[in-house]
Amino acid sequence: MSRSSLVAGLDVGGTKILAVVADAGGTQMAWRRRGTTTGGSEAVVASVTGAVVDVADAAGIEPHELDAIGIGLPGIVDPVTGEVRHAVNLGIGAESVALAERLERRFRVRVIVDNDANASALGAVSVIDADGDLAYLSLGTGVAVGLVLGGELRRGWRGAAGEIGHLPVDADGPVCECGQRGCLEVVASGSAIGRRWPVADGESPVAALFDAAQRGDADAIDQRDRLADHLAVAVTVIALTVDPRIVVLGGGVADIGPPLLDGVGAALRQRAARSPLLADLDLASRLAMVPDGVSAGALGALHLARSAVAVAPR
Amino acid sequence: MSRSSLVAGLDVGGTKILAVVADAGGTQMAWRRRGTTTGGSEAVVASVTGAVVDVADAAGIEPHELDAIGIGLPGIVDPVTGEVRHAVNLGIGAESVALAERLERRFRVRVIVDNDANASALGAVSVIDADGDLAYLSLGTGVAVGLVLGGELRRGWRGAAGEIGHLPVDADGPVCECGQRGCLEVVASGSAIGRRWPVADGESPVAALFDAAQRGDADAIDQRDRLADHLAVAVTVIALTVDPRIVVLGGGVADIGPPLLDGVGAALRQRAARSPLLADLDLASRLAMVPDGVSAGALGALHLARSAVAVAPR
Repeated sequence: MSRSSLVAGLDVGGTKILAVVADAGGTQMAWRRRGTTTGGSEAVVASVTGAVVDVADAAGIEPHELDAIGIGLPGIVDPVTGEVRHAVNLGIGAESVALAERLERRFRVRVIVDNDANASALGAVSVIDADGDLAYLSLGTGVAVGLVLGGELRRGWRGAAGEIGHLPVDADGPVCECGQRGCLEVVASGSAIGRRWPVADGESPVAALFDAAQRGDADAIDQRDRLADHLAVAVTVIALTVDPRIVVLGGGVADIGPPLLDGVGAALRQRAARSPLLADLDLASRLAMVPDGVSAGALGALHLARSAVAVAPR
Repeated sequence: MSRSSLVAGLDVGGTKILAVVADAGGTQMAWRRRGTTTGGSEAVVASVTGAVVDVADAAGIEPHELDAIGIGLPGIVDPVTGEVRHAVNLGIGAESVALAERLERRFRVRVIVDNDANASALGAVSVIDADGDLAYLSLGTGVAVGLVLGGELRRGWRGAAGEIGHLPVDADGPVCECGQRGCLEVVASGSAIGRRWPVADGESPVAALFDAAQRGDADAIDQRDRLADHLAVAVTVIALTVDPRIVVLGGGVADIGPPLLDGVGAALRQRAARSPLLADLDLASRLAMVPDGVSAGALGALHLARSAVAVAPR
C-alpha cells in the first residue's frame, strides 16, 4: 500500500450528519455535512451510506479505499457487533439494526459504530485538559452523556451508560418517546427548546431564545433560566453518580458557546448557595466546552476508525 | 513476626458500628456491634475508637497488635489522607476530620478510611457473581451507592461518586440536611421510613411497615409501594448513568430481605411496561442482595485493611 492510510469519521445526529476523512496523522482531508433522513432503520442506513459516498468523493477517493469508517450515533449501540437499538430520535426502536454489517457489505471496509456521546467523549478528551476523566453532555436532538473515567470509556453492561436523557426529572412534564414522562430529554434537548421557542427552518432555536432573553423579553428570560436550571440538574446528576474531573457541554445546543456556559454556571452556583455539599464540589468551575470549530463527535468517530485500523490492519 | 497477621474492619453507619477482626486468610476471629455516637467529629472519633478497643478485646489482643484497620463510613472521604467531610448523618459538615490520622496516632496502626458504600461495594463484589461490575445501593440512615466498574472502585474526582442520596427526586419533598429539597435520602432512606412509620426503639420501621402492608393496612400498602417506586427510580438512575451488571440492594433497609427485592422488582417491571428502553434493560433481573448473615460493609472494610498491609508491610 503506497498511499497513507485514510479513515472516515461520521457524527450522526437526529438532524444532521457530519462526515470527515483524515489521514493517519489526523490531518483532515475533506468534510461534508448533510441532513439525516430519520424514520426507521432503512432511512438511516441510506442517509449514512450517502454521507460516506459524499465525503469520500470530496476527498477524491472511492469509499472502498478507506481503511476504516468510525460512526457515532445516538441510541444503544453494541460496539462489538455494530448493532443499534433504541435510537428513538432516528426512528429506531427495540429492534436491532445491523448498521456496521450493512455498511461493511456495501463498502468492503471495516466499520466501527458506537454511541455518539461516547464518540464525542473520546473526541473531547483529546482536546480538553481533563486528566482523562470527563463527561461529555451531548445536548442535541436528544440528551445523553459520554463518560471517559480514568482514561477508559464506560459503555455499561448493556450499552446504556450515559443515557441520562431518559431520567425522569419532571413528573408533570410531557410524555417522552421512550415511554416515560418528563424525561430530561423532553425538557432540555435541542428539539424540546425548538418546540417551546419555534423559529424558521435553518435557524437555531437556542440562539434565538438567548438573543430574545438578552433583549429583555420576559418569556425568553424565563425559558432560558429554566433551561439553564434543567442543565444544572443534569450536571449535578453526573457529579453525584460518577463525579468526573470535567463536564463538557456539547452538541447543537452548545453551539451558542459562552452564553450557555455562563447560564449553566450561574444555575449551578445558585444551587450551590443552598447546599454546602454542592458548594464543596464547585461544579461551575468544572464546566468546559470544546474549542470553537472543533467537532468532538467527528474527532471521536475518527478515533474509533483509527482504533479499528490499529487492531486489525488490512 | 510469629503470629498470623490480623486486621480489623469497621462498618460505621449513622446508627451503629459493626467491627470485625480477621486473619490474613479472611477467617473472622471476633466481632462487635455498638451504637454510633453522632453529633460532630469528636463524638464520631470517640465512637470509632471505642469500637476498635472493644473488638480487639473480643479477639484477645491489644489494638496496636493489629496490622491495619479498615473503616467504611458515610460521607465524602479522601482515601489517601483519610479525611472525612460531609458525613451529614454523623453530624460532620464541610470541615475536614482527619479520622485516619487521629486513629493512627492513638493506636500506632495503619488506618485506611473510605466511603461506606464504596467499602460495601468492594465487599459485595467478593460474594456476588457480577463479573466485577456492580453498584451497591446502600439504604441505611442515608442513601448512597458504591460502584465497582470493570473491577475498579470508582471514587470520583472529589470523592463524590455515588452520592445519589442527594439527587433531588421530589421538588415538593422535605428539605434535606444537605441544603436541597426532596433528595432521594429524605424519601427513601431508613430514617425517612422511620419518620413516616414510627416504631418503638430497637424495632425496624421497614420490617414493621412491610408487616402492616402484608396484613392489609391500606396506609402501609401505600407507603410500601411508594418506597419501592422511589427505590426503582434510584436503580433506574444508576442504570442510565453507569449501567452496571448487577445492582445490590443493601444497608439496614435491606435487612428485611426478599420482600424488599420483590417490591423493587415489581416497581421496576411496572416502569418497564411503560418504556421499551427500560424493558430492554431488564433491571428487575439485575437486582441482588448479599447472602444472609454477610455484612458487605465489614467485608469491604477488611478488604481495605488488607490492601494497606499488602502495600505497606510493617
